[in-house]
Amino acid sequence: MCNNKKDRPLFVKINNLDNVAIAVKPKGVEKGSTISENIKTIEFIPQSHKVALKDFKSGDEIIRYGAVIGYAKEDIPKGSWVSEDRVILPKAPALSELPIGTRVPKSLPPLDGYTFLGYRNSDGTVGTKNMLGIVTCVQCVEGVLNIAVEKIRNELLPKYPNVDGVMPINHNYGCGVAIDAPEAVVPIRILKNLALHPNFGGELLVVSLGCEKLPPERLLPEVGEENIIVFQDEPGFKPMVDRIVQKADEILKRLNKRKREVCPASDLVVGLQCGGSDAFSGVTANPAVGYAADLLVRAGATVMFSEVTEVRDGIHLLTPRAINEQVGEKLKKEMAWYDHYLELGGVGRDANTTPGNKKGGLVNIVEKSLGSIAKSGSSVISHVLSPGEKVKPDQKGLIFAATPASDFVCGTCQLASGITLQVFTTGRGTTYGLEMAPVIKVSSRTDLSEKWKDLIDIDAGKIVSSDATIEEVGMEIFKLILEVASGKKKVWTDYYGIYNAICLFNPAPVT
Amino acid sequence: MCNNKKDRPLFVKINNLDNVAIAVKPKGVEKGSTISENIKTIEFIPQSHKVALKDFKSGDEIIRYGAVIGYAKEDIPKGSWVSEDRVILPKAPALSELPIGTRVPKSLPPLDGYTFLGYRNSDGTVGTKNMLGIVTCVQCVEGVLNIAVEKIRNELLPKYPNVDGVMPINHNYGCGVAIDAPEAVVPIRILKNLALHPNFGGELLVVSLGCEKLPPERLLPEVGEENIIVFQDEPGFKPMVDRIVQKADEILKRLNKRKREVCPASDLVVGLQCGGSDAFSGVTANPAVGYAADLLVRAGATVMFSEVTEVRDGIHLLTPRAINEQVGEKLKKEMAWYDHYLELGGVGRDANTTPGNKKGGLVNIVEKSLGSIAKSGSSVISHVLSPGEKVKPDQKGLIFAATPASDFVCGTCQLASGITLQVFTTGRGTTYGLEMAPVIKVSSRTDLSEKWKDLIDIDAGKIVSSDATIEEVGMEIFKLILEVASGKKKVWTDYYGIYNAICLFNPAPVT
Repeated sequence: MCNNKKDRPLFVKINNLDNVAIAVKPKGVEKGSTISENIKTIEFIPQSHKVALKDFKSGDEIIRYGAVIGYAKEDIPKGSWVSEDRVILPKAPALSELPIGTRVPKSLPPLDGYTFLGYRNSDGTVGTKNMLGIVTCVQCVEGVLNIAVEKIRNELLPKYPNVDGVMPINHNYGCGVAIDAPEAVVPIRILKNLALHPNFGGELLVVSLGCEKLPPERLLPEVGEENIIVFQDEPGFKPMVDRIVQKADEILKRLNKRKREVCPASDLVVGLQCGGSDAFSGVTANPAVGYAADLLVRAGATVMFSEVTEVRDGIHLLTPRAINEQVGEKLKKEMAWYDHYLELGGVGRDANTTPGNKKGGLVNIVEKSLGSIAKSGSSVISHVLSPGEKVKPDQKGLIFAATPASDFVCGTCQLASGITLQVFTTGRGTTYGLEMAPVIKVSSRTDLSEKWKDLIDIDAGKIVSSDATIEEVGMEIFKLILEVASGKKKVWTDYYGIYNAICLFNPAPVT
Repeated sequence: MCNNKKDRPLFVKINNLDNVAIAVKPKGVEKGSTISENIKTIEFIPQSHKVALKDFKSGDEIIRYGAVIGYAKEDIPKGSWVSEDRVILPKAPALSELPIGTRVPKSLPPLDGYTFLGYRNSDGTVGTKNMLGIVTCVQCVEGVLNIAVEKIRNELLPKYPNVDGVMPINHNYGCGVAIDAPEAVVPIRILKNLALHPNFGGELLVVSLGCEKLPPERLLPEVGEENIIVFQDEPGFKPMVDRIVQKADEILKRLNKRKREVCPASDLVVGLQCGGSDAFSGVTANPAVGYAADLLVRAGATVMFSEVTEVRDGIHLLTPRAINEQVGEKLKKEMAWYDHYLELGGVGRDANTTPGNKKGGLVNIVEKSLGSIAKSGSSVISHVLSPGEKVKPDQKGLIFAATPASDFVCGTCQLASGITLQVFTTGRGTTYGLEMAPVIKVSSRTDLSEKWKDLIDIDAGKIVSSDATIEEVGMEIFKLILEVASGKKKVWTDYYGIYNAICLFNPAPVT
C-alpha cells in the first residue's frame, strides 16, 4: 500500500505479490500516464479499476491482495485495463480441502484503559441506547401498532427525556409461512433475539393478533402474560391502541430512570459490514476498519464480521485463522449451508456482485471477498454464529456471524446476534441506517465523504487522497466507536433518523 | 344451510350430503343437547366446531360442503365432537387426473345499471383512490424516503385536498438478492405492477440508490429520467429529501385536478381474500362474498380470488369450472409450481392451517379450502394470473390470481394484479388493512362484529345469528363495494389509517 506518500500516486498496489494496481484519481487515469519506471497506461483506466502491471498471457493468474482473483481470459498487455470481461472467475475453494487452524494468529498485545458509558443490563450485556422495543408476533398487527407508536412518540416520549426512542419490531413473518419447515428456525431465532436486544434494557412488550402461527408462547415463552397484548382479546381498535400506550407508559417510566455508567471497552459488541462496495473498499475503508477491529479485540471486546456470500470465495484465508477444529468446522458448515441454499434457488455464487460493485471496479465475487475480509483485521477467529444466533456474554474476540450479505438483512441478523453498534464501510455510498443501534458510516473514497457531508461519519479515503495511514484512520474509528457508544456523539443516521426496516432472513417457504 | 329460521339452530349443515354440522352458539353446545330428532350431543362441542351426525367407523368419509374433508381416525359415535385429532387428512387431488371444463357454469343473467364514481386513467383502468405512489428500487433508500414522505404529508398534502394520500412503496427487495435466479421474476413483476397501480393515476416517481441490482431501467424501463431520483447522484441527505419533495409537488398538482366520474360497475377490479378464518367463514362470510362475486361478474366487473395453498385441496372443484383447456391448464400449472416450491422448502401442504384456524374448528387444509373456495361464487373461471401478474383491461369475470395465502403477501400480490378494492372475510378477526386500495372487512360471526365495532364493516354472521339470507348479505356487500369505490363511504381501515406493509413474495434466494 502506498501510504505516507506526499506525492499522490496514480495507482495503489496492496500486496507485493500483486500484478495489478488500482487507479486512484477520481476521474480515472488517462492513456499514456506513467505508472512506474517501465509501465505506462495504454488505455484509459476508470477510477478504482485495475491496470495490468505485467503482460498477461491468456490463462495467467491475476493477483490482488496477494491472492488469485481470477485468470486472464485473453492476452492482456501491460498497462491495459483489466476489465470484468477480460477475467475468468476461479473455482470456489472446496470446503472439504480447507486447512483449519494452520495459521492461527498470535494474540495481539492487550489494550487496557479504554472505556465507554453504557447502560448495564441484568444479564451482563451493556446497551448503547435506551429504547422501548415492542416486538410483534406477526405482520398482521403492524397497522394498529404503528398508530399506537406514533401516539407514544408524540404524547409519552417528551415526558421521558432519558429514553432514546420507541421501536416497533415490525416484520413480514409470523403467519402465512411454513412455521414447521426445517429452516423456519432461522427467522424465529432472529425475531426472538431482536426482542431480547441489549438496547431494550431487558424490558419486553409483545403484540400478538391471537391466531398467528408464531404465538407469543412459541416466540418468547419467557414473557409473562402481563406483557403480552392479544388483539383478538380486545374489544376493538381503540382499546388495542390504549392497551399498547398504557403498557408502554409503564415501561417508559422504568427506562427513564436508567443511567449510563462507565464500562470497559470489553463490554462492546460491534458489528462490521460493507455495502455499495467499490475497489477502494478493500484498499482504504475495510483495512482501516480491520485495524479498528484488532484494537477492539485487544481491548477485550466482541467484534462480528459477516456476509457469507462475500467471504465464501476467500474462505481459504479464514479457516486457517480458526482458533480450533470446532470453530473451523462450524465456519465450513455455514458455507456449505449457503452453497446448498443458493443451489436450491438455482443460482451460483456470482449472484452476489451488483452492478454498482462492477462499476466500482470489482470484477467478481473473489475480488469483492478479499476486500470484504480485510474488515476482519488480523485476529484469530474465536467463534462462529449461525444467522441471528445470539452471542453469549463470554464469547469475546473476533466472531464470524454467518448472515446474508444483503445490507438490510445482514444488519437485522447482526442486531439479533447482539451488536450494540455497527461500523459500515461504503464505496458507492448508501443511506443505510439502523434504529436499534448506531451505525458509523466509513467512506472508502474522499470524494464520497465530501459529497455526502451529512451522511458519512469518517473518511477512510484520505488513506489514498491524503497522507493518513491505515493505522491512524483505524484508531480514529476505534475512538469514534467509544464516543458513539457513550451517547456523546451522534452518527448522521441517528441525527436525522434515517432508518431501514427490520428485514428478517427467511429461507423457508411462505404458504 | 339453515337460513330464514326464526328459531336459532344450535348447529348448521351446509349441504344435504354432509354427515357433520357446525356448532353455532358463541359459547358452544353443551353435552346432551338435541341436534335433531334422534341425535343428541354426547360431549361439549365448542363454537364453530363439528358434531358427528352419524356413527363413524374408523376410515369412514367425513363430509362437509358435500365433499370429503377427511377420514375418521377412529370410531366416532353420533353426537361426538369431530376434533382435529380424530380426522385423517385425505390425499391431495392428483393434478394429472383433474377434469377441465367439465362443469362450466352457465352464464348468469347480466346485471345492468350499477355504477360508481371512479378516477378514469388513460390506460383504461379506473382508480378508487387518488394517490401519489413513490416506488423504490431497493430497500436501502427507505430511511431517507420515509423522512421525505413525512414532509410531503405534513407540508404538501394540506394544499391538495383532492389527493387521498402519499404512499412509499417500501419493500425488502432490490439488492442482496439473486436477481437472476429463475424465480426472481416474481418479486420484480410484483414490484413493477405495484408501481403501475390504477390508484396512482398513471404518475410515476422512482427512487433508486444507484448501485442496486434492480436499477430503474430494469424495474421500469418506461420511466423517463426526469421521474427517477438516484441518491448516489445527489450531494447529500438534504438534497435527496428536497428532490423527492419537489418532484412530489409537481405530481400532486396534477393529481389534485383529477375528478371522479360515473363509471359502470364493469370498471371495478375487486379482490377477495380471507384471513383468520374459522369454521363459520365457509358458512356465512365466504358464501355471502361468493354471492357478491356473482353479482360483480354479472355486472361485467373483474373479480379475483387467490391463495393457492387454500384452494389446492379443493382444486378438483375448480378445474371443472375453467372456461377452456388453456385456463384449466394454467390453474394446474400454478398448483404444480406451488407444490414444488413447498417441497423445496421441505414442507407439506398442511403447512397452511394456523393455530387460530384449528381453534376456530377447521380440522385441516381440506376443510379450510372448501370454505375458502366458497368466496368464488358460482361463475365460470375465465382467466388465471401468476403471482403479481397484471390483469388486462379486457380480462373480465372471475379470475383465479395465484398468490400465497399469507394475508399480507396475498394482499400485495392482488394489488400488483390490479385490484382497486378488496373484500376480506374473517372469523377470528384481524386488523389487516391496505393503503393502496380500500379493504371491506366482513365478519363470519356476529359476536366478532359486535366486539370489533370499529374494525368490521359488514357482519355476515347474521346469516346464522339472525334471519338474514346469504343473498341479502351478498347484495349488501355488493352495494357497499360501489359506495366505497366511489369514495362515499370509508372503510374502517381507511378511517383510522390502519395499513399493513407491502410484503413482496420472493421465492428466490437472498445473497
